[in-house]
Amino acid sequence: MAYVNENYLKLKGSYLFSEIAKRVNAYSSKNADKKIIRLGIGDVTLPLPGACIKAMHSAVDEMAQKATFRGYGPEQGYDFLREKIIENDYVPRGIGLDIDEVFISDGSKSDTGNIGDIFDVCNTVAVTDPVYPVYVDTNVMGGRSGEIGTDGRWSKITYLSCTAENGFIPPLPKERVDLIYLCFPNNPTGTTITKKELKKWVDYAASNNSIILYDAAYEAYISEADVAHSIYEIDGAKEVAVEFRSFSKNAGFTGTRCAFAVIPKQVYAHTKEGERVQLSKLWNRRHTTKFNGTPYIIQRGAEAAYSADGKAQIKEMIAYYMKNAEIIRLGLQEAGFEVFGGINAPYIWLKAPSGYTSWGLFDKLLADANVVGTPGEGFGPSGEGYFRLSAFGGREDTAEAVERIKNINRW
Amino acid sequence: MAYVNENYLKLKGSYLFSEIAKRVNAYSSKNADKKIIRLGIGDVTLPLPGACIKAMHSAVDEMAQKATFRGYGPEQGYDFLREKIIENDYVPRGIGLDIDEVFISDGSKSDTGNIGDIFDVCNTVAVTDPVYPVYVDTNVMGGRSGEIGTDGRWSKITYLSCTAENGFIPPLPKERVDLIYLCFPNNPTGTTITKKELKKWVDYAASNNSIILYDAAYEAYISEADVAHSIYEIDGAKEVAVEFRSFSKNAGFTGTRCAFAVIPKQVYAHTKEGERVQLSKLWNRRHTTKFNGTPYIIQRGAEAAYSADGKAQIKEMIAYYMKNAEIIRLGLQEAGFEVFGGINAPYIWLKAPSGYTSWGLFDKLLADANVVGTPGEGFGPSGEGYFRLSAFGGREDTAEAVERIKNINRW
Repeated sequence: MAYVNENYLKLKGSYLFSEIAKRVNAYSSKNADKKIIRLGIGDVTLPLPGACIKAMHSAVDEMAQKATFRGYGPEQGYDFLREKIIENDYVPRGIGLDIDEVFISDGSKSDTGNIGDIFDVCNTVAVTDPVYPVYVDTNVMGGRSGEIGTDGRWSKITYLSCTAENGFIPPLPKERVDLIYLCFPNNPTGTTITKKELKKWVDYAASNNSIILYDAAYEAYISEADVAHSIYEIDGAKEVAVEFRSFSKNAGFTGTRCAFAVIPKQVYAHTKEGERVQLSKLWNRRHTTKFNGTPYIIQRGAEAAYSADGKAQIKEMIAYYMKNAEIIRLGLQEAGFEVFGGINAPYIWLKAPSGYTSWGLFDKLLADANVVGTPGEGFGPSGEGYFRLSAFGGREDTAEAVERIKNINRW
Repeated sequence: MAYVNENYLKLKGSYLFSEIAKRVNAYSSKNADKKIIRLGIGDVTLPLPGACIKAMHSAVDEMAQKATFRGYGPEQGYDFLREKIIENDYVPRGIGLDIDEVFISDGSKSDTGNIGDIFDVCNTVAVTDPVYPVYVDTNVMGGRSGEIGTDGRWSKITYLSCTAENGFIPPLPKERVDLIYLCFPNNPTGTTITKKELKKWVDYAASNNSIILYDAAYEAYISEADVAHSIYEIDGAKEVAVEFRSFSKNAGFTGTRCAFAVIPKQVYAHTKEGERVQLSKLWNRRHTTKFNGTPYIIQRGAEAAYSADGKAQIKEMIAYYMKNAEIIRLGLQEAGFEVFGGINAPYIWLKAPSGYTSWGLFDKLLADANVVGTPGEGFGPSGEGYFRLSAFGGREDTAEAVERIKNINRW
């Protein structure tokens, strides 16, 4: 009898986006004349930077000639890309990295989802709440959760509630934890924490022999000086943190797929007998055994994101999305909403008006403004009463959506 | 204290290819004038088919325009590719599949490496010996092995010895097993089994509630009628088998990365309490949670492998490599070697002459013919005394390598 991993059976289907689709379809089918504006999804809409396009065309051409054809590449990624990452994303911030501390991958979803493989099932896990569901679901799959409670929280997982009450600053856990997932700028709230706050986490991890799994997928949107682009800007982080970065939200690679993980050699975890083990070695073993590298063509595209043209084009794209964020943020403030985020991130996290749950607000905006967003409750129990709008839409649609929301005259 | 998955610590580094590199470098540094021919690696050398190149250029252009830009795609792959796969690889062989039974991925290494995630750690595993190391290593990582013995075999894993003595036909296991990895045409031996032999495995799995994990990465090289291209050509296989296919060895995608897994809905595994669970649902959950799809550009390239031009170009490439295989096979036979494979696969598996271990033969061929191959022992204990040569080299190099081996006058 072949047996399944029963942890998978604990998980519900991905309820959030299918429920959204269901409600939108139900509305559309009765209101075919209405133009619905979708600001729900965290996907980019601008085309790839010209520099990346050019580099990929050139790489495709290389694949067409025997002399320049590339077969299997290094699983950890080509040095040309790893070097560019270090030179551009780290060295200018005073962070030195060795090339074998950078692992190119096909996405931060894969990286943050797979990182659990190298840790024992007994580790305790903390996540912020609300949270990117992948962190939680993959730990459930890996056997690190108990059962889900009626409050929507898994037993054995520590939830760090982030709400307007604490300024979206995750509180240090009361019970000690082994693995801590942090994401700043945050998805879904669009908020950040200061370097001083982040330092508390690094210190916590150092005192408790914990590991921080730091997702910095949105770092390109940071506009304020006191927000770290990399956790390694914080003293001591190189001993306790793994960092995840992506080309999805800066260069628009959501459908092109390239990301990387940084695991400094100083990061150790332990055996049950107390022996120290370099995490980077374990990740290297996983990466080389279960992955065969990101496509050469795509890695050349990612490399071009660091060219002068690429950087300028990305800067423009970020500015475009952040102008959208400003339009949403200021527009909704004007309409009397309490809004968060949107300054260092392309997400606006808004408080549902009194009397509305997050799904209640979803239905209201769909019906009265024909605008689709994401109910905060879908990201975790502490997301209840909040709502996410994304700045990744087109400018006109974004402006129109905001106008429509402002024009709702009955709440 | 964060704890590591200690199963990782049981694994040695990937000794095989680093040891080969070490010995080649040692030889080269003393013999700089010698031209070394490498027929060791299983990597293609011909450029991508023109049809795939054209399709990828066109897809890159789509990514440059807002109207045709693609962000996140379906994690399971685009329907355009899944449909082409079913229409071309399965329907003509009398195999019907639903589109949601096909999961596009970034490679068979990822798929065969990750499939273990959805099975309980208690399952017993059988592999053929010699074997593609990923099957074994990923089960060690997942906790399904005991310790490695002095004979190079892991306890708790069942090894099905495949040697000249049994015609490379894996014997049914004596103790029952839950998961069975089969790869035909086989890497590394280049041998196949008949449909009648394969039927024995399907029947075994049906009687024992086992699951067959069938790796058909080399199916494009099959030239004989009695060898199944898909395990689903065998009656009953749709109830017991998962199939892995790849664009690496037919369309030359080793550095371009696209593959797929087929999981028919009729394949079930069980909970400890005996409840039946559809495997495809679990894999879908894994795929959507830990993976974000294969790049759009690459999927368009793979789709073009099924165009009329693409098929013709691939046919030519396969013919080129198989002519190499013939040159190696006949040449070595002429030189008195006992050779296997090379008829339905791009690998020649040769018996080391009397008195030679597989590493002994490696050293001999390196020194006397300046030819690099892969010692069979690197693929498992039953590979001892054998040696793999690959047909993926250039024609001239291949022919010269064979001549050099023929000209070795002292054994």
